[in-house]
Amino acid sequence: MSEVSNDFEVKRLDKIEVAKRIITNYLPKEEGLQKTVIEAMNYSILAGGKRLRPLLMMEAYSFFGGHDEKVIGPFMAALEMIHTYSLVHDDLPALDNDEYRRGMKTTHAVYGAGMATIAGDGLLNFAYETVLSAYENCKDLPEFDGRVSSRFVAALRVLADKSGIYGMIGGQCADIEAEHRNDISEEDIIFIHENKTAALIEASLMIGAILAGAGADDVHKLEQIGSHIGIAFQIQDDILDIEGDADKLGKPIGSDEKNEKTTYVTIHGIEDSKTEVSRRSMEAISLIEELESKNNNDDDFLKNMVNWLINRQV
Amino acid sequence: MSEVSNDFEVKRLDKIEVAKRIITNYLPKEEGLQKTVIEAMNYSILAGGKRLRPLLMMEAYSFFGGHDEKVIGPFMAALEMIHTYSLVHDDLPALDNDEYRRGMKTTHAVYGAGMATIAGDGLLNFAYETVLSAYENCKDLPEFDGRVSSRFVAALRVLADKSGIYGMIGGQCADIEAEHRNDISEEDIIFIHENKTAALIEASLMIGAILAGAGADDVHKLEQIGSHIGIAFQIQDDILDIEGDADKLGKPIGSDEKNEKTTYVTIHGIEDSKTEVSRRSMEAISLIEELESKNNNDDDFLKNMVNWLINRQV
Repeated sequence: MSEVSNDFEVKRLDKIEVAKRIITNYLPKEEGLQKTVIEAMNYSILAGGKRLRPLLMMEAYSFFGGHDEKVIGPFMAALEMIHTYSLVHDDLPALDNDEYRRGMKTTHAVYGAGMATIAGDGLLNFAYETVLSAYENCKDLPEFDGRVSSRFVAALRVLADKSGIYGMIGGQCADIEAEHRNDISEEDIIFIHENKTAALIEASLMIGAILAGAGADDVHKLEQIGSHIGIAFQIQDDILDIEGDADKLGKPIGSDEKNEKTTYVTIHGIEDSKTEVSRRSMEAISLIEELESKNNNDDDFLKNMVNWLINRQV
Repeated sequence: MSEVSNDFEVKRLDKIEVAKRIITNYLPKEEGLQKTVIEAMNYSILAGGKRLRPLLMMEAYSFFGGHDEKVIGPFMAALEMIHTYSLVHDDLPALDNDEYRRGMKTTHAVYGAGMATIAGDGLLNFAYETVLSAYENCKDLPEFDGRVSSRFVAALRVLADKSGIYGMIGGQCADIEAEHRNDISEEDIIFIHENKTAALIEASLMIGAILAGAGADDVHKLEQIGSHIGIAFQIQDDILDIEGDADKLGKPIGSDEKNEKTTYVTIHGIEDSKTEVSRRSMEAISLIEELESKNNNDDDFLKNMVNWLINRQV
């Protein structure tokens, strides 16, 4: 399962470039008396790397036959803006106080904590501005799943719900709170991973599918797939923190132990954690295969992407 | 013009209670592992006082014949959430570092700067969740001004645009930047007031009107009215900082002079500034009167509200 072909890697890198081009199209111009906040927003977005969420959204969209960049593009950009603002705020001195991310200075390290705070706000709000300004491209789409709701509004609701207190922000809160507690349960850890990490991955897949015209059942399956991917991804992170290669990872290992952090691995041990990563990975793959046979689609990219994400060593 | 009757004051206080009840309806329940961030969000909202923006929105809505609380309520709550998040972030140690606002501890003073940061994010995002979750109540409204766009989406776009980098956040950025400059022009000051303060007042009036079925011309007039109100309100603030009564204001006067801040008053002097407040006030009133005669409406509340806002001594 963990074999990832060269062919896939070439495709993945190509798709990252496509996603990056699309996202860049929707960035605001750096001008006017508000130029600095826009520069800080664009700096934060352009510092990003894997473009995981927009890429998964683009894949889910084409999986279900979508092919209009003017429809999917604004949502891809919006989700990347939301993911990025969450990193900008997470890195602030009042939160994680990180000066570097992936070898680049964090936004507040360049622009100061005050400007980074409003740049994060600017990104979050601009995500909604971006999607709304593209309404004209979406308004003639058929309704979602035969319900009395436009695909556009259905997709926008998923974006908002998965980003807020019942999604990503909820997970951030629980994560902050967990630092001061010594009675963290497995359920708490799953809640944090499900919301802080998985929620936006679920949103990527669901929004792509909704905009392409998938039905509610398939969208629900994608939500489950996103949940497995997100949770397995985080458990794999905890495993790598113990037995990964610090050089390859580009960050020191052993930080969870040093911070006495309760993780899935500290509760279940490393072997059972690896089994859980495999189980969730296989669960996700098997759900994708169900979607493939139902929709007569045999594009392996989505499956390979799951393998790559979950079984990575870096 | 500056006479405000007792009758108006009674009505205003009644309407504040109505607005507060409506906003409270849409607040999230304080439960789950994300309970703390929700508590911090609700604390921030419930600490608010004048409910100016939701009140103006409610007035504009009923001015144009709107009468469905399920349509206007979510937008009133959403705008108050956006206004509130901007105060929560503005008060942070990385920005204004204020421990008290209207005699109450600020959000970060109670919950810490990290939790206050994500509570602000939570409020901004929840504004969009709140409006989107009420889509079902709005989807059968006729289209906005005969254009190919639903009133719901038109109102939501105004909310997003006026809150972002081309509205409130843009004004905040310019305001922060102005602190480090000694070449502030009148144009810069008007830009800051127009965006930081007037944008959300414009949004209040415009959204109320759009949802009630006003045409694009009337919505544009309300935008101008909101602009005059917001700018005059801020110039009045600067005047009160010089000749106001510190006891009545509940804050010390002379802070602009102490901080060597360039204001409309330092550029034009106090007499010309008072003239400008009057001019904008009369301009706003005259535009409201145009709307009144066009729409056969003689409710004085909106006019009185403008008088009260602009000519206040506190």
